[in-house]
Amino acid sequence: MDILPNIDWSGLLTNTGLIVLKLIGIIIAFTIVKAIGNRVIRKLFQRFQERENISAGRTLTLQSLSLNLFSYFLIFMFIVMVFEIFGYDATALLAGAGVVGLAIGFGAQGLVSDVVTGFFLLLEKQIDVEDYVTIAGFDGIIEQVGLRTTQIRGFDGTLHYVPNREITNVSNHSRGNMRALVDIGISYNDDIDRAITVLQEACEKYQATDETIVEGPNVIGVQALGSSEVIIRVIAKTENMQQWAVERNLRKALKEALEANGIEIPFPHQVYIHKNESETRRA
Amino acid sequence: MDILPNIDWSGLLTNTGLIVLKLIGIIIAFTIVKAIGNRVIRKLFQRFQERENISAGRTLTLQSLSLNLFSYFLIFMFIVMVFEIFGYDATALLAGAGVVGLAIGFGAQGLVSDVVTGFFLLLEKQIDVEDYVTIAGFDGIIEQVGLRTTQIRGFDGTLHYVPNREITNVSNHSRGNMRALVDIGISYNDDIDRAITVLQEACEKYQATDETIVEGPNVIGVQALGSSEVIIRVIAKTENMQQWAVERNLRKALKEALEANGIEIPFPHQVYIHKNESETRRA
Amino acid sequence: MDILPNIDWSGLLTNTGLIVLKLIGIIIAFTIVKAIGNRVIRKLFQRFQERENISAGRTLTLQSLSLNLFSYFLIFMFIVMVFEIFGYDATALLAGAGVVGLAIGFGAQGLVSDVVTGFFLLLEKQIDVEDYVTIAGFDGIIEQVGLRTTQIRGFDGTLHYVPNREITNVSNHSRGNMRALVDIGISYNDDIDRAITVLQEACEKYQATDETIVEGPNVIGVQALGSSEVIIRVIAKTENMQQWAVERNLRKALKEALEANGIEIPFPHQVYIHKNESETRRA
Amino acid sequence: MDILPNIDWSGLLTNTGLIVLKLIGIIIAFTIVKAIGNRVIRKLFQRFQERENISAGRTLTLQSLSLNLFSYFLIFMFIVMVFEIFGYDATALLAGAGVVGLAIGFGAQGLVSDVVTGFFLLLEKQIDVEDYVTIAGFDGIIEQVGLRTTQIRGFDGTLHYVPNREITNVSNHSRGNMRALVDIGISYNDDIDRAITVLQEACEKYQATDETIVEGPNVIGVQALGSSEVIIRVIAKTENMQQWAVERNLRKALKEALEANGIEIPFPHQVYIHKNESETRRA
Amino acid sequence: MDILPNIDWSGLLTNTGLIVLKLIGIIIAFTIVKAIGNRVIRKLFQRFQERENISAGRTLTLQSLSLNLFSYFLIFMFIVMVFEIFGYDATALLAGAGVVGLAIGFGAQGLVSDVVTGFFLLLEKQIDVEDYVTIAGFDGIIEQVGLRTTQIRGFDGTLHYVPNREITNVSNHSRGNMRALVDIGISYNDDIDRAITVLQEACEKYQATDETIVEGPNVIGVQALGSSEVIIRVIAKTENMQQWAVERNLRKALKEALEANGIEIPFPHQVYIHKNESETRRA
Amino acid sequence: MDILPNIDWSGLLTNTGLIVLKLIGIIIAFTIVKAIGNRVIRKLFQRFQERENISAGRTLTLQSLSLNLFSYFLIFMFIVMVFEIFGYDATALLAGAGVVGLAIGFGAQGLVSDVVTGFFLLLEKQIDVEDYVTIAGFDGIIEQVGLRTTQIRGFDGTLHYVPNREITNVSNHSRGNMRALVDIGISYNDDIDRAITVLQEACEKYQATDETIVEGPNVIGVQALGSSEVIIRVIAKTENMQQWAVERNLRKALKEALEANGIEIPFPHQVYIHKNESETRRA
Amino acid sequence: MDILPNIDWSGLLTNTGLIVLKLIGIIIAFTIVKAIGNRVIRKLFQRFQERENISAGRTLTLQSLSLNLFSYFLIFMFIVMVFEIFGYDATALLAGAGVVGLAIGFGAQGLVSDVVTGFFLLLEKQIDVEDYVTIAGFDGIIEQVGLRTTQIRGFDGTLHYVPNREITNVSNHSRGNMRALVDIGISYNDDIDRAITVLQEACEKYQATDETIVEGPNVIGVQALGSSEVIIRVIAKTENMQQWAVERNLRKALKEALEANGIEIPFPHQVYIHKNESETRRA
Repeated sequence: MDILPNIDWSGLLTNTGLIVLKLIGIIIAFTIVKAIGNRVIRKLFQRFQERENISAGRTLTLQSLSLNLFSYFLIFMFIVMVFEIFGYDATALLAGAGVVGLAIGFGAQGLVSDVVTGFFLLLEKQIDVEDYVTIAGFDGIIEQVGLRTTQIRGFDGTLHYVPNREITNVSNHSRGNMRALVDIGISYNDDIDRAITVLQEACEKYQATDETIVEGPNVIGVQALGSSEVIIRVIAKTENMQQWAVERNLRKALKEALEANGIEIPFPHQVYIHKNESETRRA
Repeated sequence: MDILPNIDWSGLLTNTGLIVLKLIGIIIAFTIVKAIGNRVIRKLFQRFQERENISAGRTLTLQSLSLNLFSYFLIFMFIVMVFEIFGYDATALLAGAGVVGLAIGFGAQGLVSDVVTGFFLLLEKQIDVEDYVTIAGFDGIIEQVGLRTTQIRGFDGTLHYVPNREITNVSNHSRGNMRALVDIGISYNDDIDRAITVLQEACEKYQATDETIVEGPNVIGVQALGSSEVIIRVIAKTENMQQWAVERNLRKALKEALEANGIEIPFPHQVYIHKNESETRRA
Repeated sequence: MDILPNIDWSGLLTNTGLIVLKLIGIIIAFTIVKAIGNRVIRKLFQRFQERENISAGRTLTLQSLSLNLFSYFLIFMFIVMVFEIFGYDATALLAGAGVVGLAIGFGAQGLVSDVVTGFFLLLEKQIDVEDYVTIAGFDGIIEQVGLRTTQIRGFDGTLHYVPNREITNVSNHSRGNMRALVDIGISYNDDIDRAITVLQEACEKYQATDETIVEGPNVIGVQALGSSEVIIRVIAKTENMQQWAVERNLRKALKEALEANGIEIPFPHQVYIHKNESETRRA
Repeated sequence: MDILPNIDWSGLLTNTGLIVLKLIGIIIAFTIVKAIGNRVIRKLFQRFQERENISAGRTLTLQSLSLNLFSYFLIFMFIVMVFEIFGYDATALLAGAGVVGLAIGFGAQGLVSDVVTGFFLLLEKQIDVEDYVTIAGFDGIIEQVGLRTTQIRGFDGTLHYVPNREITNVSNHSRGNMRALVDIGISYNDDIDRAITVLQEACEKYQATDETIVEGPNVIGVQALGSSEVIIRVIAKTENMQQWAVERNLRKALKEALEANGIEIPFPHQVYIHKNESETRRA
Repeated sequence: MDILPNIDWSGLLTNTGLIVLKLIGIIIAFTIVKAIGNRVIRKLFQRFQERENISAGRTLTLQSLSLNLFSYFLIFMFIVMVFEIFGYDATALLAGAGVVGLAIGFGAQGLVSDVVTGFFLLLEKQIDVEDYVTIAGFDGIIEQVGLRTTQIRGFDGTLHYVPNREITNVSNHSRGNMRALVDIGISYNDDIDRAITVLQEACEKYQATDETIVEGPNVIGVQALGSSEVIIRVIAKTENMQQWAVERNLRKALKEALEANGIEIPFPHQVYIHKNESETRRA
Repeated sequence: MDILPNIDWSGLLTNTGLIVLKLIGIIIAFTIVKAIGNRVIRKLFQRFQERENISAGRTLTLQSLSLNLFSYFLIFMFIVMVFEIFGYDATALLAGAGVVGLAIGFGAQGLVSDVVTGFFLLLEKQIDVEDYVTIAGFDGIIEQVGLRTTQIRGFDGTLHYVPNREITNVSNHSRGNMRALVDIGISYNDDIDRAITVLQEACEKYQATDETIVEGPNVIGVQALGSSEVIIRVIAKTENMQQWAVERNLRKALKEALEANGIEIPFPHQVYIHKNESETRRA
Repeated sequence: MDILPNIDWSGLLTNTGLIVLKLIGIIIAFTIVKAIGNRVIRKLFQRFQERENISAGRTLTLQSLSLNLFSYFLIFMFIVMVFEIFGYDATALLAGAGVVGLAIGFGAQGLVSDVVTGFFLLLEKQIDVEDYVTIAGFDGIIEQVGLRTTQIRGFDGTLHYVPNREITNVSNHSRGNMRALVDIGISYNDDIDRAITVLQEACEKYQATDETIVEGPNVIGVQALGSSEVIIRVIAKTENMQQWAVERNLRKALKEALEANGIEIPFPHQVYIHKNESETRRA
């Protein structure tokens, strides 16, 4: 009795033939899908670049990321299908992928989240290198926007690495003119109208000397009745990043104007009542 | 022995015929479903627009998003079904979709959440461009409401990009008349009735000069007995966005009215008891 | 050899017959289930309305939501079953539904949560339009209770849109009489018993003049021994929303009563010890 | 050729017979299980009521909830089984249930959580109507304990609706005698021993006049050496809800006792050092 | 043609026989497993009790909980298996269990968490009745440790019910001697060495009078240079729960010792510089 | 007709033979796997102990935990396989395990988390008994490191039980020399250079007397310009746990050095401006 | 009748042959995949090292981690496949792996998260040993960056062990020049222009003496109008880690410059109004 008498050689060959046919079919299918997919992605980014007026470099980064992701997806599915054709059950492969997926899900979800957020940060131009922003509690100038991390240079020289997933609300201080605001207190004894006139004149004089001012500065009125002073608010609109210089200069100019006109910037006041010691003894 | 002797050609053809029949059936089914679905969606939005009085542009944005989502859903299911008809097990496709889905679930859930919230923000008109709102801790004027991000221009000129998912409670300050509120303190020595009369008169005089006032201003009474002053509250209702100007003007008017009538706005008081040094030495 | 020789026409017809039978069976089953289900839902709401004394409009809203949900559920299951009868594997449909479900789970869970909470808010009458409430940190008057969003008009005129899911604890200030509470400080030198008598008399005099008072006001005793004053507390029960007016009036009345009886409302005290400079030099 | 020639009528009938048999078997099984289950539940609650001494009304509420849940569970399983017997695949039903289950999981989990917590709140008697409690940050008297919501009446008259899920830690102030605590400061110059004697005597005199006192009040010693006063602490144990009245009365009694014995309750002290202006100029 | 002609009665009987055999096999298997399991659990707790020196009552509670859980687990599996043997598909049962499981997962997870934590609290003796602890932000004496809830009696008489899941960090103040700590300030003018000598002598004198002191009290040195005083720290080790009494007594003793030796406990100091009004006018 | 006529006894026997063969195969396989696995684990810990220089006791604890876990894993899989061989579907067993697993997942995840963290705490020697650490907000000395709980003895005598899962960041204060830091303020009138010289001399004198000092103490300069004093900082490096004693001694030494050299440690300053009452009346 | 008469020995052998063939196929496949995979990983890291200029040691750590992970993944899948070939259902293995995976998911997810974050920390060079950083709320110098834990030496000598998962935002203070910032207040009476001139001169004089200064220091203007002083800000850019020394030296230099030029650094001011006691009595 020979060892392999019952092996159905012809059936085996038929199977082999079918497998080959299926393999060819799959390869052709994947080649076509990949070609079409790549084309579509490239077209999309080309159109996007033209419409949104985005730098070619940034578009290229986004496009190559998209192409890579598409390739990995196709390769993964191709492997699974080939396994199935050869009759090895793909369960093992999928189980392995499942365990790895679970690990990704729990351990590396931050990473995926970083890349997704990074993708949209690049796409939507919320932040650009050199912008002055407030992100994730950090104040500073953007140094680099990456797919995983954004680097912000704080004003004290610290370099903050912020994972993109930490970036939710973006406060961009480099998107238009900024406001300069100065609150100045005058004494309750001084005439409010006169103080406003003096301050407004100082504002106009200052405006003439500073080209970074876009609008104002104007006295807008009595902001508060403080416990020792009447607070008057002055507001101006300045060119971007000039707000602090304007505020510093305005503070100096307004203080000097009040001084020159004899209007007091008061220190904290307190009314003292002197009581007779014997009279106030509690016991 | 020829290599493919046992291939059941007639069965194969039968199968092929069945596949073709099934394919045609599916294509017809999907065409019908798509046509009906699109029609239903368009009808819904048309009716919605008529009933809710929403701008055509906004409705179009929402409608095309809905149509796209419906298309993607149908295409996905069509591909799965075709795969199954051809006898390739769709498991691989689904597994791939599953892994991608997992990644979406963990990494990009924020994105889905953004779009869903954005959809309803557009649909329900909670915020409009030019509204003054408080959202996600940011105060400012809405510059743009997108499907993913809402842009708010802060009063200091900063542009805040808020992902829609961060928008839960919306405080819209541009939905009706606003309140102007001024608290003013008088001395404990002054007569409360007289002060109220003086303030009420000043209020009425001021009201005559300001057209943005809708109601009041009225003195509503003694709000608190402070440590050094009796605090009296004045309330008015003004046209939207005029509340600050009215408050500033009221503060000035009330302060001047009290001054003119000899009623004191007191500084903080403290009673001083002078003790004999030797007597108070602790040791 | 003809192309479809082996197709089992009679079996096909048998199958067709069976399918038709099954279809009819299912349609009948669903029709019955739907009829019964609708009836049950309507009965439930009818009874609920009678028992809970709820407005017809509110009941209708809840009932039509329930009927809709029930319909969607039946339609979904009907489609799945028909697919299965025709031998198309429903896996694709379910997979599609699964992916959509996942997206809902992660992205739109807030929406589902909103509707569920909204359903119970309407059902349990925790809040009504015109109620003064504190919800999700916002103080104000309810303007509208919807299935997705509740609108609260703040006292400063702001309209707050609160998604129902944000509503957990509801503090409703319009569900019964409210308390008016006034704390007033007297000097350590004054006799407590006399002050209490004077205040209690003032309370009784005030009560006679105000019809919104339900109970009290009564002096309840020495609430605290402050650093410069003995604090005495007065409490009253007033009609709803009248608590602030009563408090303001009580404050004025009590202050004037103490004044009229020569009992001092003291300013902050401090004992000053003058030391010899040379003696206190640390070095 | 007749259309249904090959239908195996006898097999069909056999199947029908088997189905009927199976149906009968299932119905009998479910009837028995339900009867036993209901009996067990009733027995459990009967025993529970006897052992824990709980009101019949409360037990009934819990029992009927348990019976309902058990019924729903049996009905659900009965339907699934019947479907299977008739050869309709129950997948569709289960899938539908799954989608609904998902929606519950994400959207209505709060509801389930409310009911579970409510069940245990009723079962364990942590809170009763009329109890004074602190729950979820709200202070007040319990008005109602429901399966979904607990209502607390705040002392200012507000009615707080707290979903049971928000109730984690329960601080019940109506579960035994309460402590009254008064801190009183004496001057650094006064003799501590004498002050303690005076206060202790006042405590004993007060105790004789107040029947709500369970233990004390006693002077327990020097609690702190404050910046201007030596703080002495007095503690008493009172009947429930009488602690505030006792504290108010004790405060008055102790203040008057110190006064009568010439022991000072001091105001804040500060030592003033007068410096020569020219000497202290920084520049 | 008779209605049940083709029913294979003998096969049916054979099946019945097999089912009976299988049933017997399963029942025997479960009986054995249960017997062994119970024995193992009992042995474990017996050994545990001997080794850890835990009260018999506590061990019994834990043991009966373990036995119950084991029983429920076996019963559940027994039912599932019997279902399968009778040829009813267990899917329905499992699906039902799954839905219930989901509800547990989302709604009652807190409950499971409570019992697990409670199990370990009882097992590890972290807290005992009568212990003074700080748990979940509550300070007080343990009144009861249950499987679901721990009851803490606050020092003001309030009874706090804390679900065990809220108990993470346990601070047990009844596990050994406690520290008494007194900070006392002397004047900058006084000699530190002399003050330390005086205080140390007072400490030693006090130690002789108090038997609850385990170690010290000792002066450990200059703890801080305050703005008006040099702070000196005294530390002692006392018997458990005696720390407050010791601190109160020490405070009195040290204050009197300094007084007796003429060392000052200073009031807050401030240096006053009188400026010429005209000179300091800002304007 | 005999009841079991058709039972295929020979097939049954064949099956039995196969089952026995399979059983033997599995038992052999598991025995081998267990032997190899145990050996590998033991080898790993032996090498680990040699390399990392860890106490034998600690290694033994970790090793026996690992061996136990490995055993439980093998036993679980062995049971499942035996079930399958006997033809009982293992679904029930797995379902049971699944429900238990779900309960673990939601209820006892903290427990698993505790053990995992505990494993690494023991492995990495981040904390040792007797270390002074700050963990989970608690300051104190480690008393015991267990697999589930770490015990920390606070300086006031309290014993804190911290579940290991609560231990994320570990601040170990017993891993090297510590810094002693003293900030001391001098008057604005005093010469900074002279004060620094005096302080540095005092530092050097003190260093000679204290052997626990490793480096310094050195005056590092003007740390801040306070509102009433120029703050000068002194830093030293001391042996572990000696930092507080050194700081206390340094404070005393520096205060005495300044005093001896006539340099003032100033009290808070304030400039007083006396205004004419009539002139400052606000009204 | 012999016991194993029906065993199909030849079929068994055929099966054995097929199994052997499959085994060989799998082993070959895995060998190839492993070889290729290892090569790809090594190539990737080689290129990465060349491009990013990273130390060989760090690259080796990352590479060996990657190789290990790849091996574990292959081994796991190899075992599963072998099991399947031998006809043992791999379900048990997978179920076991699933339970373990669940435990990992819930209990040890932190561990996976640590390693993933650690991998990227090493890869991206965000932190290096000896860097001064702020991470997870800890300030200090990096001592070691591991795959699971990062060690930071605080400035007070404490060693902080931070699990990598706790590291989100990294603030690295050793990545470039730092800013030194000194705020100094002058009296309201002093001339601002003169003060700025004096301070600027002092800055320039100081710059000449300090080589660690990169830019400035420069007076940038009036930062604020304080209640008692005009605050002027000075900014410089210094070499890394020199910022504190520069700030300390600048503070001293600027204080001495103002002093030398007779410009006052003012103490807090307060205006005192003396009122007639009788006049201010409230009652």
